[in-house]
Amino acid sequence: MTQRPLTISDWRQATAADRAAHAARLDDADPAIFIARGPAGGDGIPLAVKDNIDAAGFATTAACPAYAYKPEASATAVARLEAAGFRVAGKTNLDQFATGLVGVRSPYGVPANPFDPACIPGGSSSGSAVAVARGLVPVALGTDTAGSGRVPAMMNNIVGLKPSRGLVPATGVVPACRSLDCVSIFALTVPDALAALAIAGGPDTVDPFSRALRQRLPRPGGWRVAVPHAAALPWFGDGFGPEWWAAALDLLRRTGATVEEIDPAPFLAAAALLYDGPWVAERTAAVGDFIDAHWDACDPVVRAIVRSGRARSATDTFAGLYRLAAIAAETAPTWDRYDALMVPTAPRHWTLAEVAAEPVARNSALGTWTNFVNLLDLAALAVPTGFHRNGLPIGATLIGPTGSDLALAAIGGVVHALAGLPLGATGAAADPASLRPARASGPGVEVAVFGAHLTGEPRSAALIALGAAPVRTIRTASRYRMVLLEGAMPRPGLVLTERDGVAIEGEVWLVPEPALPGLLAEVRAPLALGLVALDDGSEVRGFVCAAGGEAGAPDISRFGGWRAWRQAAAKTQSPTV
Amino acid sequence: MTQRPLTISDWRQATAADRAAHAARLDDADPAIFIARGPAGGDGIPLAVKDNIDAAGFATTAACPAYAYKPEASATAVARLEAAGFRVAGKTNLDQFATGLVGVRSPYGVPANPFDPACIPGGSSSGSAVAVARGLVPVALGTDTAGSGRVPAMMNNIVGLKPSRGLVPATGVVPACRSLDCVSIFALTVPDALAALAIAGGPDTVDPFSRALRQRLPRPGGWRVAVPHAAALPWFGDGFGPEWWAAALDLLRRTGATVEEIDPAPFLAAAALLYDGPWVAERTAAVGDFIDAHWDACDPVVRAIVRSGRARSATDTFAGLYRLAAIAAETAPTWDRYDALMVPTAPRHWTLAEVAAEPVARNSALGTWTNFVNLLDLAALAVPTGFHRNGLPIGATLIGPTGSDLALAAIGGVVHALAGLPLGATGAAADPASLRPARASGPGVEVAVFGAHLTGEPRSAALIALGAAPVRTIRTASRYRMVLLEGAMPRPGLVLTERDGVAIEGEVWLVPEPALPGLLAEVRAPLALGLVALDDGSEVRGFVCAAGGEAGAPDISRFGGWRAWRQAAAKTQSPTV
Repeated sequence: MTQRPLTISDWRQATAADRAAHAARLDDADPAIFIARGPAGGDGIPLAVKDNIDAAGFATTAACPAYAYKPEASATAVARLEAAGFRVAGKTNLDQFATGLVGVRSPYGVPANPFDPACIPGGSSSGSAVAVARGLVPVALGTDTAGSGRVPAMMNNIVGLKPSRGLVPATGVVPACRSLDCVSIFALTVPDALAALAIAGGPDTVDPFSRALRQRLPRPGGWRVAVPHAAALPWFGDGFGPEWWAAALDLLRRTGATVEEIDPAPFLAAAALLYDGPWVAERTAAVGDFIDAHWDACDPVVRAIVRSGRARSATDTFAGLYRLAAIAAETAPTWDRYDALMVPTAPRHWTLAEVAAEPVARNSALGTWTNFVNLLDLAALAVPTGFHRNGLPIGATLIGPTGSDLALAAIGGVVHALAGLPLGATGAAADPASLRPARASGPGVEVAVFGAHLTGEPRSAALIALGAAPVRTIRTASRYRMVLLEGAMPRPGLVLTERDGVAIEGEVWLVPEPALPGLLAEVRAPLALGLVALDDGSEVRGFVCAAGGEAGAPDISRFGGWRAWRQAAAKTQSPTV
Repeated sequence: MTQRPLTISDWRQATAADRAAHAARLDDADPAIFIARGPAGGDGIPLAVKDNIDAAGFATTAACPAYAYKPEASATAVARLEAAGFRVAGKTNLDQFATGLVGVRSPYGVPANPFDPACIPGGSSSGSAVAVARGLVPVALGTDTAGSGRVPAMMNNIVGLKPSRGLVPATGVVPACRSLDCVSIFALTVPDALAALAIAGGPDTVDPFSRALRQRLPRPGGWRVAVPHAAALPWFGDGFGPEWWAAALDLLRRTGATVEEIDPAPFLAAAALLYDGPWVAERTAAVGDFIDAHWDACDPVVRAIVRSGRARSATDTFAGLYRLAAIAAETAPTWDRYDALMVPTAPRHWTLAEVAAEPVARNSALGTWTNFVNLLDLAALAVPTGFHRNGLPIGATLIGPTGSDLALAAIGGVVHALAGLPLGATGAAADPASLRPARASGPGVEVAVFGAHLTGEPRSAALIALGAAPVRTIRTASRYRMVLLEGAMPRPGLVLTERDGVAIEGEVWLVPEPALPGLLAEVRAPLALGLVALDDGSEVRGFVCAAGGEAGAPDISRFGGWRAWRQAAAKTQSPTV
């Protein structure tokens, strides 16, 4: 029952036998989970990718075979994970064009809910969520416009991280509502979701909605978390709702957080805007012409929703934007008073038959606590909190302002650990310490790393032990050479150059100010902590080579980064080129 | 010819005779400047207010008599200026519904261009600009969506400050394009415009688009200013254009700035969006129903423009927003490399006859260098740079990212001073030192002041001498009492309280870090530099009363702020209540 490897760290130690057993499990998996699978075998950590996200070598279908196209390159998020040692194990099923929260609007069938096949798996990222819950992959990418990265997380007893808007570029993603779409991350644990975010995050130069975000950490003096007034919680006929929510609140209080009730009315008003407002016209702009031309090839519920956007005018649109601005101003003070808002991830489960009987209203009900998040430019993290008396998983979502991803992970990881649940649907127990990210709080300093401190590399553990956390992927300005500093632990050295400079890949970590002495201890000659110019014109503190230290060191600039050099070196068996 | 008082500081020393002479000049003024005038006489510094901005006691017409309504209160910007000692001398003419850059689309006539009555005065804030140029008011409020606060500044040889979007609340302003509209400031000098901004700026709780903005100061190591490639400058048939622009660039170089040419194509592409894109539907949303119901009461050019927004769909709108996001991402690196972009304020002048012959195309030409600014969330400052050989004034606009208002003023003030021009159309020469704001640069600390350091109060000069600059108006959280600390210089003392707390009005100043010792010297017992909670939930360093210092001091909390207490005290002749 308790198969391994499951988590990213399990996979980093996987044996050939592990890989063979995993290949067999993939073969046996519910065929409705994957629309396409990767080649059997191969190295790397398996990654599932929702089939509205491009992965080189696979067609992208968005769960509409007539729409299928063969992308020239992987989406930015996929390419970054591939470069960091992941490989695409398969493209996963979804509600067509990511339009739905149910997971049943697909010609490729319904990925079975692992806890009750009569119930929906949640969507639109249904296949990605089930693949993680089944232990087929440690990490899966989804997308989340209205809740597609959170609702299926609850229904599969896994973690669903909906990053701040723009933190992970949407380059290579079939748009739903382009101004709102986020690439989301499913994992069995919060630290695994954070590790994937650190790799996939950071702006690219293609998606204009991608952003370089500064992270805000939770205040050091104890978390303050808002929750909706108990009377304000709709359960849509599930009489057990109040009971399971009370248990979730109990977990939250056990974290030591100060918990206060607030009126969620303005948040719910924003949620209503997603359906009553103009944003459905973004779906029309994205795929409306295709659907009109391929009416019979499209899901009946999806095509009706997408076409409805044609009835909206420009004046409707601006009226919606004004209403949203008013709600945003009304809700903004929440984030001065609280580190997070915790809500039920979804108000209830539905059976397949219930959704078939009322496909639109029951879909909408699922988005009660998710729809407002991207409209209001918030980040969210769904974590499992327990099981319903009907045996289905239940969960809570922590919500915070843009740039609160790490803060939400800090709180959510503790809630998840306190819940004491098995991982997904694998039956595997988890060491509670492995469920919570290293604690970071208070003011921090951003530091760019390029070699042994990159996520997953040998010295990243030392940074984590200091309370530091990876924040985003970066590229330097094209003004550097990278040399190989050989020794017991080979490291790259960045050398500023006036000519033939290249951009070097790296990561920014946030280091708590009190840990700065510990960070300095990580600086070993000939490295130094200097300033690094980035390709977005900004400057950040980071590891560079001290002048003179590069003498005689082989130049490995052409690889563009440490991970690429390591992969190449591993293949050629030559440690220097 | 050189009438006084002209500037704010002149007016602070105005005599009764000055006021009588000024009243006579107002009486003689071009009747097309004012749609309505304030009562004759009265104290205070005269302020002109564009008639799409509410001022208590006046109807608001937006230059459409059928639209007129009597507002219950002054717009936030007007109320703040009134509280700081200004009084509304009149409501000024404009292009109807602020739709135009020409100043001729009004049933109230055309305010004559003071330099050539055959030429347009520029619009839409025509009356406000001419009122300042004529020396009738030191400060006038306009609005600026597409350039209405800048084009008429050039045509009247005055300063036009278009603040960062949201810095001055638009509460009480008839909307044009609500997502873009800015209240703008005309003045004879940059320091006067900045002084008015410091009073009028800062979010209110009504306008959801108003924002608390942190100011970025110009880098200390010398300004870097981009200018468009000379070949990219269209002059629309004015052969003298290249010559006057070369003279303006010469002024810029004489400031010591590093000047580099860039390709303005992406900025111009954004400008084109304002006319070709969906934003015209915001005008339709604002006044379209009124115009449809009062077709014959509206200007023919204006009503055709506003109605055209009805043809736009929601999908058009999102397509426009996506295109704008792409251009914003493309242009964003400009602000990492440069402190400002300098462009011609307008490419040329037009006669009234020329505009009548081609009312739309020639209006559009005027917006070449202004239209993109609010779309891209930039700040701008138009300053006079000289005279055309036809005798009409010419000028340049400095443009920077949101929050660059003070930086633009620093550069623009020096450009204006180097130009050595008379003030507006008054013929008065200016002391060059009075034209440039106190220089602030490098990292700064925000400090809240509540009494003698407020703009115009006795110790504000000391802050200016330190290189500090006023940034925005604030209100504390409702957790304070204000007491009167009597002595040679009466001051207010803020006392934190658990009950009966009120919100106190103040200002935030930005103090350069090297000036912190000087700031500490401004702190006299029983005052102290502590932390102050603001009504937006944030906290800022600021002047408070030290514990125990409030003993025996009269409580003046009910006035809500120092200026209100001073006014009341002046009337009752009682210094304590």
